[in-house]
Amino acid sequence: MKYDFELKIKVRDYECDLQGVVNNSNYQRYMEHTRHEYLESLGENFGAMHGKGIDAFVSRVDIRFKVSLRSGDYCLSRLRTAREGPKLVFYQDIYRASDGALSASGRVETVIVENGRLTRGEYFNDLIKKDTTSK
Amino acid sequence: MKYDFELKIKVRDYECDLQGVVNNSNYQRYMEHTRHEYLESLGENFGAMHGKGIDAFVSRVDIRFKVSLRSGDYCLSRLRTAREGPKLVFYQDIYRASDGALSASGRVETVIVENGRLTRGEYFNDLIKKDTTSK
Amino acid sequence: MKYDFELKIKVRDYECDLQGVVNNSNYQRYMEHTRHEYLESLGENFGAMHGKGIDAFVSRVDIRFKVSLRSGDYCLSRLRTAREGPKLVFYQDIYRASDGALSASGRVETVIVENGRLTRGEYFNDLIKKDTTSK
Amino acid sequence: MKYDFELKIKVRDYECDLQGVVNNSNYQRYMEHTRHEYLESLGENFGAMHGKGIDAFVSRVDIRFKVSLRSGDYCLSRLRTAREGPKLVFYQDIYRASDGALSASGRVETVIVENGRLTRGEYFNDLIKKDTTSK
Repeated sequence: MKYDFELKIKVRDYECDLQGVVNNSNYQRYMEHTRHEYLESLGENFGAMHGKGIDAFVSRVDIRFKVSLRSGDYCLSRLRTAREGPKLVFYQDIYRASDGALSASGRVETVIVENGRLTRGEYFNDLIKKDTTSK
Repeated sequence: MKYDFELKIKVRDYECDLQGVVNNSNYQRYMEHTRHEYLESLGENFGAMHGKGIDAFVSRVDIRFKVSLRSGDYCLSRLRTAREGPKLVFYQDIYRASDGALSASGRVETVIVENGRLTRGEYFNDLIKKDTTSK
Repeated sequence: MKYDFELKIKVRDYECDLQGVVNNSNYQRYMEHTRHEYLESLGENFGAMHGKGIDAFVSRVDIRFKVSLRSGDYCLSRLRTAREGPKLVFYQDIYRASDGALSASGRVETVIVENGRLTRGEYFNDLIKKDTTSK
Repeated sequence: MKYDFELKIKVRDYECDLQGVVNNSNYQRYMEHTRHEYLESLGENFGAMHGKGIDAFVSRVDIRFKVSLRSGDYCLSRLRTAREGPKLVFYQDIYRASDGALSASGRVETVIVENGRLTRGEYFNDLIKKDTTSK
């Protein structure tokens, strides 16, 4: 699969729970952070967007957990985007860096709200277009 | 829908993010905490189970986000369980307490591993049976 | 010692780390949540305050860790307030509920900023005065 | 001041709270992660240590908060170590990367417990000695 973006993340020990593995909720956090870093790679910042009255909200998250990450592990968090109707969907896979094993695989639906009104995600489309043009 | 368990949870302000609403990852945490409290209502504790070599792992989580919870909100986190093959599946809904609005709706698949071997969840079945018998 | 407020908190398993005990950072979170619940008991909400341009900021936190909390534990989080110059200081102790053992003991300095200007905490004084008068 | 170790950390948006700044508890987490990365730089891993029956516990944390970090910020998390009696003390400062402003300054006391017995931290001394010798 071709990805649009990749981020290397080191497991932090406070993210591991009493089972000695990264708590499931943190994969959702890794994925959020990866989306926001992707956004920065397009020249926009999530907090600044919020300040302008433009908010991306997650409407659905679906994650399959495969191989558990542990203390000391690095992972590669990759995403690709797709338009599905009014929704911007992120396909996000997290791989263990040491051996390339797939650790978690997610599909995250988002919508963009501008000044309280649901949009068809034009704001995000424009960011991608600008990014593509400038290359 | 009939639920097997309900837990009232107060939003904690550190769970809210810069958008002023509870961060999505925390709904997954609310759901985990609700499952573990349900487990305690059946007479077992998640940490004690781990100490005995029995671990429940989440294999998939699918959450739809509806109405955002905010600072000051209480929510009612409800679950019902279902057997689907070797998996124990939790259907989990989180309602805003003030008006009963559905805030998030999840389906969480879990498997039970005993001493490193995947089981068909007999351990959990026995807990439920004991609980039903004792009533 | 006489406390102004008490909150009972159940340990959530995702708050425990790979050592099997509540991660240190979560005591700071328990203390924050206790202060904010105390604020609600005085008739104010932290998020609503922020919406009015009034923010409490922590300027210093000093916590001694004694007995570790674990999965299944309840704790009693107690606080008393003191004025020390322009600062509002919270003395916060967390006790394990099962045996009353002191788990963590903190001193948290806060300042109140109104519309970007540092105050002497008059806003909070007024809340306490109103609360005392109404009793 | 001379530091023993430095780690660059990017603020993650879920670490920011409804005030739009990094929640105080996360500075404690940044500091923990920095200590554990320092440990890895000495050739040891915190989770592996725990597996060998050797645990470092924080006995006290004292943090002064100066300039708030926000969405998009990078910080430089620096530490130096000191022996103070049986305790290993970490002096940890977090600077905003963009302008070098001091964001938070902490003093963290730790003790090392081997197989349930409190030690004078010989295990850590040996790690440092080995590290120094090998350079």
